[in-house]
Amino acid sequence: MHRREIPAGGFHFIDSTLREGEQFRGTHFTLEDKREIAALLDQFGVEYMELSTPIASPQSAKAVRAIADMPRRFKLLTHIRANLDDAKLAVDCGIDGADVYIGTSNYMREYSHGKSLEQVIEIGQEVIAFLRANKVETRFSTEDTFRSNFADVMTVYRAMDLAGVDRVGVADTVGIADPLQTYNLISNLRDVVGCDIEFHGHNDSSCAVANAFSALQAGATHIDTTVLGIGERNGITAMGALIARLYTYDRALVEKYDLPLLAEIEGLVAEKLGIDIPFNTPITGAVAFHHKAGVHTKAVLNNPVTYEVIDPKDFGMSRIIDVAHRLVGRNAIRDRANGLGIDLGEDALQSVTAQVKSLADEQQITAADVDRILGETILPIDD
Amino acid sequence: MHRREIPAGGFHFIDSTLREGEQFRGTHFTLEDKREIAALLDQFGVEYMELSTPIASPQSAKAVRAIADMPRRFKLLTHIRANLDDAKLAVDCGIDGADVYIGTSNYMREYSHGKSLEQVIEIGQEVIAFLRANKVETRFSTEDTFRSNFADVMTVYRAMDLAGVDRVGVADTVGIADPLQTYNLISNLRDVVGCDIEFHGHNDSSCAVANAFSALQAGATHIDTTVLGIGERNGITAMGALIARLYTYDRALVEKYDLPLLAEIEGLVAEKLGIDIPFNTPITGAVAFHHKAGVHTKAVLNNPVTYEVIDPKDFGMSRIIDVAHRLVGRNAIRDRANGLGIDLGEDALQSVTAQVKSLADEQQITAADVDRILGETILPIDD
Repeated sequence: MHRREIPAGGFHFIDSTLREGEQFRGTHFTLEDKREIAALLDQFGVEYMELSTPIASPQSAKAVRAIADMPRRFKLLTHIRANLDDAKLAVDCGIDGADVYIGTSNYMREYSHGKSLEQVIEIGQEVIAFLRANKVETRFSTEDTFRSNFADVMTVYRAMDLAGVDRVGVADTVGIADPLQTYNLISNLRDVVGCDIEFHGHNDSSCAVANAFSALQAGATHIDTTVLGIGERNGITAMGALIARLYTYDRALVEKYDLPLLAEIEGLVAEKLGIDIPFNTPITGAVAFHHKAGVHTKAVLNNPVTYEVIDPKDFGMSRIIDVAHRLVGRNAIRDRANGLGIDLGEDALQSVTAQVKSLADEQQITAADVDRILGETILPIDD
Repeated sequence: MHRREIPAGGFHFIDSTLREGEQFRGTHFTLEDKREIAALLDQFGVEYMELSTPIASPQSAKAVRAIADMPRRFKLLTHIRANLDDAKLAVDCGIDGADVYIGTSNYMREYSHGKSLEQVIEIGQEVIAFLRANKVETRFSTEDTFRSNFADVMTVYRAMDLAGVDRVGVADTVGIADPLQTYNLISNLRDVVGCDIEFHGHNDSSCAVANAFSALQAGATHIDTTVLGIGERNGITAMGALIARLYTYDRALVEKYDLPLLAEIEGLVAEKLGIDIPFNTPITGAVAFHHKAGVHTKAVLNNPVTYEVIDPKDFGMSRIIDVAHRLVGRNAIRDRANGLGIDLGEDALQSVTAQVKSLADEQQITAADVDRILGETILPIDD
């Protein structure tokens, strides 16, 4: 199984918080919200941002024009159906590029747009030609790629590559793909087209991050992400989680981004949506660097790398050594005591550890309970 | 890339909510909590449950004895360090099997237990021999397998297989593995040992579910899971998410479990921990079957399979078609109208859709706003 190296400069994030993220339940971004989120993501260093199609509503069009006009380093894209009216309005709004999509699975062709494969190619070529004539970057994506016939999708991609598209997109629209399948499809596509390859993956079966990573290993160049993974249904590849994955593979891959901004960006979007950051979120989740079991805390106190593959400092985060529970070990208690300026002998350490375990066996305790037991040990109270 | 078929009867869940889950921040399960969770998971159909080592505290030992005595179909395991004292107490508590673990990476050997590879094998063989003599099921797992030397781990696994262990365990203790790497390691291991293979994966880089699935494709037979994925740091493979993954691959794989119980089990554990079920949780998350964009709702109203790879009914869940936002399309509005017994003509439909988009452009709206607009359309109000 040959895996391509992922070159640090060889991939780009297409942030779709203001497009796919608008399809998340309860999202209602105002123009000011959109500007604020875009400015922060620009500072973070995302290479592209994709906005909802201007044809969706007057406010959607206004937002594209406004973001096009703001000072920024990212390229501005919008996500449009494969038709000329949508493309014309997009160009008129001042975009740098258009992400054109159309369904290729039998499901999509029967229940969504009703077009044959030949018609899909024909309309695709027409829209791409129009966009190229208007000098904007072009992407053509099939929708529901993994439930499409393999020969069909390769045929469509080759036709679009020959039509001069800058990028073809593979979309796991329904969240059905697994990593080996993603790797396999994109590896083959890499040999069929000369243009760039984008991957868009939904998270219905919890593989959106893993599939994006497999796509990069297979030669994809662009990954669609959103802040916290928000999107239609339970969302797509979360930017922060993908950064965690890339970091653990090779830290150099994510050095181009302003990593300490990640928590602020996620906090901003979560606040605007009124949602909590899921506890299991890598890096920025409340428990990402939380160590509890005795074996773990002992080793982490010796050397954090033993149980940590991400350095919390790189993201402005902190490690937590939890001492207030029945699984606590002597090393964590000693460390807590040292933190309070208390130097315990071995006997006192054993005694305190046993007392903490015993109390925690009976009830939920806090660090304050541990500190009190430590205090009582060095200052026995007569009564 | 050869992928093994995953046989429906060929894999087992080892639920570790009462062991790995105890290492989650703030977990304090009482004995009654443990009995309640175990009873529900037994009803769901998990094949194994793993509890914290009885050596951790008196209450931990009491819990193992109590769960051993309850009526149940699952096999009861406990998770012990590779030493005879831990093993003796475990056997004395009435377990059906013991999950023995020891670190094999340089990090673990240097900063955790300080043993050489020869010592790891020697103590492992001794503990396995003791457990086998006591007629309990045995598993031997390396810890931090993916940062261990490949030759070392294969040597240890082969030695344990020859020592008669029932199962060897591969552990991504620090959450560094990716799916291709997991597939590769377990495929090779499958050729080295004759015994069963267990996979345990942390979620630090968001691949715990994908890696577990790759492990099964490579020939693993047992997967460690917890309810909602709770565990040390941000946790391990979540049972519900892995079920979503297996279901989308082949629905028959998960028919052995009582699927409509999933939401109840997750609700129970979330309530005991005082945590929210993350919005992005597959199947049971609040938005798992939430459809919003016009293109999506149109197709889902024609045939749900177009944008749904999991049937919500199989889990006792419901689909939500969202009409109250600026991305809404005519088909969703028509469906909402039909639900209210209103049959709109094409002109009225276009007008209502435009009114909803326009209002949603200005402010966050709800379904009640849409219903009001629909009502005003069929019953024009003079004032």
